[in-house]
Amino acid sequence: MLVDAELESRLSAIVGAEFVRTDAGAMEPWLTDWRGRYTGRARAVVFPASTEQVAEVVRLCAEQDIPMVPQGGNTGLCGGGTPLDDGVSVVINVSRMKTIRRVDAAAYTMIAEAGTTLADVQRAAAEAGRLFPLSLAAEGSCEIGGNVSTNAGGVQVLRYGNMRDLVLGIEVVLPDGRIWHGLRTLRKDNTGYDLKQLFIGAEGTLGIVTAVALKLYAQPSARSTAWVQVASPDAALSLLGRLRDSCGDRLTAFELIGYEALGLVLHHMPDVRAPLQGEQPWAVLVELADAGCEDELRGRLEAALESVMETGMVQDAVIAQNTAQAKALWALREAIPEAQKREGVSVKHDIALPLDRVGAFLQRAGDALEAYWPGVRIAVFGHLGDGNLHYNLSCSAAEENQLLLERSGVLNRIVYDIVDALNGTISAEHGLGQLKREEIRRYRSELELEMMGAIKRTLDPRGLMNPGKLI
Amino acid sequence: MLVDAELESRLSAIVGAEFVRTDAGAMEPWLTDWRGRYTGRARAVVFPASTEQVAEVVRLCAEQDIPMVPQGGNTGLCGGGTPLDDGVSVVINVSRMKTIRRVDAAAYTMIAEAGTTLADVQRAAAEAGRLFPLSLAAEGSCEIGGNVSTNAGGVQVLRYGNMRDLVLGIEVVLPDGRIWHGLRTLRKDNTGYDLKQLFIGAEGTLGIVTAVALKLYAQPSARSTAWVQVASPDAALSLLGRLRDSCGDRLTAFELIGYEALGLVLHHMPDVRAPLQGEQPWAVLVELADAGCEDELRGRLEAALESVMETGMVQDAVIAQNTAQAKALWALREAIPEAQKREGVSVKHDIALPLDRVGAFLQRAGDALEAYWPGVRIAVFGHLGDGNLHYNLSCSAAEENQLLLERSGVLNRIVYDIVDALNGTISAEHGLGQLKREEIRRYRSELELEMMGAIKRTLDPRGLMNPGKLI
Repeated sequence: MLVDAELESRLSAIVGAEFVRTDAGAMEPWLTDWRGRYTGRARAVVFPASTEQVAEVVRLCAEQDIPMVPQGGNTGLCGGGTPLDDGVSVVINVSRMKTIRRVDAAAYTMIAEAGTTLADVQRAAAEAGRLFPLSLAAEGSCEIGGNVSTNAGGVQVLRYGNMRDLVLGIEVVLPDGRIWHGLRTLRKDNTGYDLKQLFIGAEGTLGIVTAVALKLYAQPSARSTAWVQVASPDAALSLLGRLRDSCGDRLTAFELIGYEALGLVLHHMPDVRAPLQGEQPWAVLVELADAGCEDELRGRLEAALESVMETGMVQDAVIAQNTAQAKALWALREAIPEAQKREGVSVKHDIALPLDRVGAFLQRAGDALEAYWPGVRIAVFGHLGDGNLHYNLSCSAAEENQLLLERSGVLNRIVYDIVDALNGTISAEHGLGQLKREEIRRYRSELELEMMGAIKRTLDPRGLMNPGKLI
Repeated sequence: MLVDAELESRLSAIVGAEFVRTDAGAMEPWLTDWRGRYTGRARAVVFPASTEQVAEVVRLCAEQDIPMVPQGGNTGLCGGGTPLDDGVSVVINVSRMKTIRRVDAAAYTMIAEAGTTLADVQRAAAEAGRLFPLSLAAEGSCEIGGNVSTNAGGVQVLRYGNMRDLVLGIEVVLPDGRIWHGLRTLRKDNTGYDLKQLFIGAEGTLGIVTAVALKLYAQPSARSTAWVQVASPDAALSLLGRLRDSCGDRLTAFELIGYEALGLVLHHMPDVRAPLQGEQPWAVLVELADAGCEDELRGRLEAALESVMETGMVQDAVIAQNTAQAKALWALREAIPEAQKREGVSVKHDIALPLDRVGAFLQRAGDALEAYWPGVRIAVFGHLGDGNLHYNLSCSAAEENQLLLERSGVLNRIVYDIVDALNGTISAEHGLGQLKREEIRRYRSELELEMMGAIKRTLDPRGLMNPGKLI
């Protein structure tokens, strides 16, 4: 077993001394997750600058039986990128690997290194006249390797799919330090098992993604955004159906915002105003995008909304008249997590349901939670177009916060059992990490757990890659 | 070891005597592939009617160490669904499993059993006002389980992706006869490794897909189709870029047709006429689809084509004025494989290249083949929007056919080495099957072959599932 000083010197020989931290204080920012839920310990945090350096670090760790924690922007919500508190791991942070190796506008592809932020990937695509459609709250700081490893979702999945759908190829350092050069850029390739799929969404438990080949799309020349008030989630779903019928694949985002969630934003962000008056319990943020001109698209959205308003399905709606207004509507939606953070403690759930079960879920879960904890506050928002809800519980009195956290296990059980009974999932886009690693044993079948375990043992037989996460 | 009579009686006990064939003559249609390249032998061909029956058959075979060949419509082009000629396998054909278990128009999902033909899946979606976008030449007889197992492609991948992108969940009978109930219909689910990805494109080597949950799309209310003559593949690629810029995701198909391929159709199908006069060497079949009205879409396509004709990129173009004309253009494209079959022997390649390498490939491969076999005829057509070409070689004199087949190994080597040097793939959408199982050892890395082998051994440790295919 390598003693600490030796480990540090050997890591320094690979990446340079200034890119190895071993002091607890100096390591701190990389040992705690974004939500502050998990604080771990590590033998070192190391910042390789290249795939070859990642591979050398991994070979060293593998040779010395040292567990490794792959890390990107450290913005995950389930503690998947944060080390355990056993203090035996080395955190391998890829944030220095920010090179965009290639943008091919004609082929609609890009190759970016794992540490490139999502925002930089979006920007590079836009500069080439293309769209990289993945978009989510953390895009300024989350990194593309982490987006691959968590199969990130966000606000445009309805039209463009999850991260998995946007990946053409990947480069991975395997748990033994070998590099798999899988950076293909082909749209069609059927030459055996699609190995990249194993690593997408594996949360770093099978290897470290070091670069990724991405699918780009046509950059829409027009966007039109509306804020629509509806009486119920079922009304929102009817609206979704009507908009898909009349606007087809132009429908890019369909975000549900519950009144409770909106209230938190209005309360904590004094410069934000409600887009519409009235006390409707639910709102939907709708966005269309298209090639063509803005006026035409806005006209289409107007016509679609007018026709549904006649049915009574929609109470009121406002369409952004310019980019600034559209941004203001989005800012409201995007402020929800921050408003929740300011409000204080909450027990969060990232769930998805078959679309026709969303209404049933909200009813059943609301009733069950109210019975267990009268007055519990439920902030609901999320990507209704994908059946994905963020369903977060808090209490009205701050002095109950401690109790809320203590009872989070029971609250989770209530929520997840109903989700499961309705064929939903307990993790739609945030993954499992440390947070739901145990939960999942209850909700996936024996056979699935067995297959997952077999895959893990096949690719990481010594269990050195991100132990204690996902599986 | 079970003797033949016992095997037959035990299989009959599971599926019924009339659904077990053991006589060589009676088995014949299921022992030869569609192209007539492979004729195998089998101990039995069995037709289970349900997932439970498939599982029972598999358990019996596994218990008796009998290799199994999963089979659907038997329309594969690489012999993946045809047994080897060792005569030891049982062919498990799922064609009786044709139930569409559920169509959920509001959620844009469908669950269909493996033996449902692709055309029936498309039809069921259309009846619900939805689109199932996978579309390929064999759609009247290929089956959806086979489409999953081969990760089928076809003519709308440019917009909607491959089969892999259209699958939300699957039900699979594993090599030991256990059933994995993975028929989720969620758009977002990140609860561990995405196990379904292992079976998609695995060509039945890891289990038998018995049902599939599919993603549906909005049914476009308008389509517009054009036949465009261009001077070169590079001009076709420029046209592709311009159309994507001006029409965005409306661009649904972009099919390249070389003059040689068109000539075969005009020669063998006397009722087919060329859409345009003139002797341009290349044509492109373009299709747009959208919500909205047909006239508007046709106007958009006209404007786009006019603007590129001014650049000289396009020589001539005709836009279908009605559905009948559009169908006639598609019929021409779809007749190419049949015309080739009537013409006689050809050595076929299903390749894909990065878009910017297509021109270089055609030049290099054309030169190399001409040098090796002066006068060799090269019929090129395919899904240029995906970089996917069908690149088929034949000779002008029928008496040389035998020689052509004898030299197919050398011809393949010439083509594939150039494809590989340009970062392309030797199988874009047809898979490996028996045809390219050995080839792939040359073109995928040691590490990839090792990972594939490890996956195979993990899920099918005794190698009973579709032996001699893919891996």
